[in-house]
Amino acid sequence: MHMQDLQDLYVEELRDLYNAEKQLVKALPKMAKKAMHDELKQAFTSHLEETKGHVERLEQIFDKLGKRAGGKTCKAMQGIVEEGKEIMEEDAEPEVIDAALISAGQRAEHYEIAAYGTVRTYAKLLGDEQAAQMLQSTLDEEGAADKKLTELAQSSINLEAQHAQHA
Amino acid sequence: MHMQDLQDLYVEELRDLYNAEKQLVKALPKMAKKAMHDELKQAFTSHLEETKGHVERLEQIFDKLGKRAGGKTCKAMQGIVEEGKEIMEEDAEPEVIDAALISAGQRAEHYEIAAYGTVRTYAKLLGDEQAAQMLQSTLDEEGAADKKLTELAQSSINLEAQHAQHA
Repeated sequence: MHMQDLQDLYVEELRDLYNAEKQLVKALPKMAKKAMHDELKQAFTSHLEETKGHVERLEQIFDKLGKRAGGKTCKAMQGIVEEGKEIMEEDAEPEVIDAALISAGQRAEHYEIAAYGTVRTYAKLLGDEQAAQMLQSTLDEEGAADKKLTELAQSSINLEAQHAQHA
Repeated sequence: MHMQDLQDLYVEELRDLYNAEKQLVKALPKMAKKAMHDELKQAFTSHLEETKGHVERLEQIFDKLGKRAGGKTCKAMQGIVEEGKEIMEEDAEPEVIDAALISAGQRAEHYEIAAYGTVRTYAKLLGDEQAAQMLQSTLDEEGAADKKLTELAQSSINLEAQHAQHA
């Protein structure tokens, strides 16, 4: 397909994000299961519910655009998820795994923060105020999820990882 | 290798970043070459120079730790770079390519912002104030590079992409 304008790029990037979110819907339950800390388990589980909502928002945007949502693989998220898998299979103390899971989660969040920021800006420029607002809502939730992970890391989990071998 | 504490995870994550930066050193000249806008070319070229500096900072940190820098592939950055390549091979108007290059660049920056934020926090907790400062300097440069790309997108490039087919 020839991409002739920003509208075409907008649809391509929404497809990339749609696939990225679907990959996260599969990965987050595994991360929640692997996490040792109850609060970290809870953070991944509640972000899973939000992520399902992000998928639905994207589906609504595709419906309104009259375009199909599927057909693209987000290779960046594939790489991020692959690295997350490696962490979960790593021979490591559980406290270290928890710290590493936070790190992997934040990389996924930041990828999405960049991507949603871009498509939100495109939607505004293209005059689709409704889509822009939906994308902004998702962007806000990704930001909040990232902040929650920072808090968990800095309040306890990094410190426990630091002293894991002495525990 | 058994990861027994935060120090081990710190070294692993520095290796991931070292490989990510090396991948960017290869990718950025191609992005600069492909970009149509002079200002975008310039942004990629000047970030290439900064990126070489980030590689050197990481090498200094590895030297001080007495660890080797290599041996890890950052699969996330591999995916991001792969998506960037796809964009450059896409059948698209040059204005649309420019907008897409900005989007790819910002995803790379955000991945690094997440990763440097994490290792900077680890370095502080581990009491390596010198490394923490170096990692913070890189983090600040990644943030500034991301902001520069946002400015370019919003000031002109997105708008030109929007009207590309009529140009």
